[in-house]
Amino acid sequence: MTFHFKTPFVRKLYMKRLALIRSKKQHALLILFFLFTLSSSLVEVRAESKPNVIVIYADDLGYGDLACFGHPTIKTPHLDQMAAEGMKFTQFYSAAPVCTPSRAALLTGRYPIRSGMCSDKRRVLFPNSGGGIPASEVTLAEALKDAGYQTACVGKWHLGHLPQFLPTNNGFDSYYGIPYSNDMDRVADRKMGRNIFLDPKVKYWDVPLMRDTEVIERPADQTTITKRYTEEAIKFIKQNQKQPFYLYLAHSMPHVPLFRSKKFVDKSRRGLFGDVIEEIDWSVGQILQELKSQGLDQNTIVWFSSDNGPWLIFNQQGGSAGLLKDGKGSTWEGGMREPTLAWWPGHIPSGTVSQELGSTMDIFTTSIKLAGGKVPQDRVVDGVDLTPVLMNTGKGPREEMVYYRGTKLMAIRKGPWKAHFITKPAYGREPFKEHDPPVLYHLEHDPSEKYDISKDHPDVIKELKAAAEKHQKTVKPVPSQLEIPLTKKS
Amino acid sequence: MTFHFKTPFVRKLYMKRLALIRSKKQHALLILFFLFTLSSSLVEVRAESKPNVIVIYADDLGYGDLACFGHPTIKTPHLDQMAAEGMKFTQFYSAAPVCTPSRAALLTGRYPIRSGMCSDKRRVLFPNSGGGIPASEVTLAEALKDAGYQTACVGKWHLGHLPQFLPTNNGFDSYYGIPYSNDMDRVADRKMGRNIFLDPKVKYWDVPLMRDTEVIERPADQTTITKRYTEEAIKFIKQNQKQPFYLYLAHSMPHVPLFRSKKFVDKSRRGLFGDVIEEIDWSVGQILQELKSQGLDQNTIVWFSSDNGPWLIFNQQGGSAGLLKDGKGSTWEGGMREPTLAWWPGHIPSGTVSQELGSTMDIFTTSIKLAGGKVPQDRVVDGVDLTPVLMNTGKGPREEMVYYRGTKLMAIRKGPWKAHFITKPAYGREPFKEHDPPVLYHLEHDPSEKYDISKDHPDVIKELKAAAEKHQKTVKPVPSQLEIPLTKKS
Repeated sequence: MTFHFKTPFVRKLYMKRLALIRSKKQHALLILFFLFTLSSSLVEVRAESKPNVIVIYADDLGYGDLACFGHPTIKTPHLDQMAAEGMKFTQFYSAAPVCTPSRAALLTGRYPIRSGMCSDKRRVLFPNSGGGIPASEVTLAEALKDAGYQTACVGKWHLGHLPQFLPTNNGFDSYYGIPYSNDMDRVADRKMGRNIFLDPKVKYWDVPLMRDTEVIERPADQTTITKRYTEEAIKFIKQNQKQPFYLYLAHSMPHVPLFRSKKFVDKSRRGLFGDVIEEIDWSVGQILQELKSQGLDQNTIVWFSSDNGPWLIFNQQGGSAGLLKDGKGSTWEGGMREPTLAWWPGHIPSGTVSQELGSTMDIFTTSIKLAGGKVPQDRVVDGVDLTPVLMNTGKGPREEMVYYRGTKLMAIRKGPWKAHFITKPAYGREPFKEHDPPVLYHLEHDPSEKYDISKDHPDVIKELKAAAEKHQKTVKPVPSQLEIPLTKKS
Repeated sequence: MTFHFKTPFVRKLYMKRLALIRSKKQHALLILFFLFTLSSSLVEVRAESKPNVIVIYADDLGYGDLACFGHPTIKTPHLDQMAAEGMKFTQFYSAAPVCTPSRAALLTGRYPIRSGMCSDKRRVLFPNSGGGIPASEVTLAEALKDAGYQTACVGKWHLGHLPQFLPTNNGFDSYYGIPYSNDMDRVADRKMGRNIFLDPKVKYWDVPLMRDTEVIERPADQTTITKRYTEEAIKFIKQNQKQPFYLYLAHSMPHVPLFRSKKFVDKSRRGLFGDVIEEIDWSVGQILQELKSQGLDQNTIVWFSSDNGPWLIFNQQGGSAGLLKDGKGSTWEGGMREPTLAWWPGHIPSGTVSQELGSTMDIFTTSIKLAGGKVPQDRVVDGVDLTPVLMNTGKGPREEMVYYRGTKLMAIRKGPWKAHFITKPAYGREPFKEHDPPVLYHLEHDPSEKYDISKDHPDVIKELKAAAEKHQKTVKPVPSQLEIPLTKKS
């Protein structure tokens, strides 16, 4: 008689019970034991085939802002521990260098050019925008809902603040958070421009805090917002111990203006920005601890990433892209490569560093595959299934990454090579600069994009140009959601 | 009857033997057991009070070149493991941005200005130099020799290649390595200048490999040099299981020209430079494994650091300072802040990240203190005892760091503040630029030295100026060893 057990816990129970039976040889116990084994196995099947999915998404966190990615004065013991128990990705990308399109890609598994969630006029949605994520898009929440998941969105949304665009109309059973960036709806003197974010005396924000479709606090008290998001997330986990769930926890921090709760004031040597990261780190620790306490750790895959690079124009209140070039807003690596971790004890080998390519769009496809759900077949999905990378069973399936700024295809990466067809610094008035031949970097030899080697590799350039053209043939024009104004009708 | 045992191993042996005696109650065994316990305790006393010291020193390794310091495509699993089992220092400095003075400081615990091991004319020693480390200096090897240690130097020396300056005349019982940098003594066409290092076809080097004071191979086969250093180091450890030892393992790599053994060719995604680092990582793994196999791990403190930052002028064959500014040769952070690890299982708390200030000069003082030796009292020693940091028992004792370029005091750090009195890029013809007021950075908020805040902090500037003046009063003029030419007499 042999059984195959999925977890050490079940195996242990089984062995204990078997020993009990062998010693007492009681038939009644034997029957009870088999019934238990059967039910355990069934629970295991559900659990094994439908892991819980948690995506923790930071806002404007730089590639170099975590201790495990090399920051010298920000302490992130819980994220470091998450890396030590899971997988650290060193070449993992968001699909856009700014907020709205990046989040659209995370939730749809598609480049934002396909959903219309990008624009060359307005880079993100604003409180005076009338657009949002189209109903025709299949969000990860909708796909996992179809696969029997409970779903919750906690934190920043930024995919449309009108009712039809809110999380609860896009597959999430519940929502608690702010509908757009934490610097929007500023009511004080706008003459100061962006410097207003840096003045602690100016009460400028008027961001609403929402539950589902209702505003419950305005302005949202941002000093406690990371803490409150964490409490909401933990409440949701507690409520869903016995059914598969998907939690999307999108912190509003460390987007300027920066806020942290009292406990974290002056905690970090890195100053205010460090305090904010250290509170997010605390939050991650709380989530992982809760999963362990509930015995859900072996049945929950947790992702940690960020929507785009650091907002460098805010100097010491912005983060650091580490050794990468430029930051938020840019298609240089610092704008789109994110400090990413995946954690799933017993499944993802602990303490692994993966140099395979990955994208936040892959979280979409991988999660649906793990849940036994359906990846939409009637449209192009750009996300690939990273399971072979996570389980260390095979080669990474992602071979390319396309870098868009608005609707412009600026650059493409294929293998280690990156060709920039157009460049422009993240901010400022410097015009778009076209390159033919494109500027070429070997990103694995030269992650800081310092040494243009286009002259030495005409064949590589040919290949990358062909790849960009092939990609562009798959893109069908759709109206931009970011250019729709807010009207009385909307 | 109670005993106090220093290590789990001895405790375990004791319990086993006690059980044996109790069951058999044999008097002869009991006597033998007590004799054994007594001898074990004596060995323990020696061991506990005199830990072995190993210093692994890389050449031109950048702050950002290890995976645990954030490099995306260099795999360093053994160094990562060393960090996970020990302490990672994020604010640890060499005392000079180039080789010879940096090594002089490591071995004497003193700024090189005090020993004359620096110059404004020649930044390091060359094969045509006649100087070297003065006999009046007390090296760490000499201090530990006095404390009863066996001592060995394996690797690059660069503190004088004439007999009187060699390791075996400076406290080391043995020496195996190259006497200066691996790019020196080039015999091929010098018209190419430094580009010669990058041409794999040019056979340009003529570096001697020495054992003690004899040349045993010329030119040294550098392809196997990291491997051979490692074998020598392990042989020395094997020979010294029963007496305290000090091993100084100074790799010649990743200084250009880069070499690695066959096993590491094309191993790294980072290319040749990555291959070289991955071989050093392998070497570190071999050393730590040997210590564990010999049961010496709990009795050996191992340091890993580098002499200065990455040699950026060599592009992809140079390393990366991560988020730090500039590299080798510069008194910007990238030139002198080093990726540093300390490992001592059972003593240094595992998985610790220390943000305390430290310097390679402190390895001198800390090692002597741990060995129960004597720190020289008849001269200024700049190294401090980092034991409270290592054991996590107290505040870091280092408050300042002075940045010299040759004999010029360029900058000073006190707490988180750094004032640059003079700046100059690492290489090139740009002149020295004096600053009054100095350029001021808050290094813990702004590790990349981007935001000069001198205008906001006149008091800090006053304090840092006073600290620099106070330091300078302790410096007595000595002749430069680096300006002494090689003559027939020398």
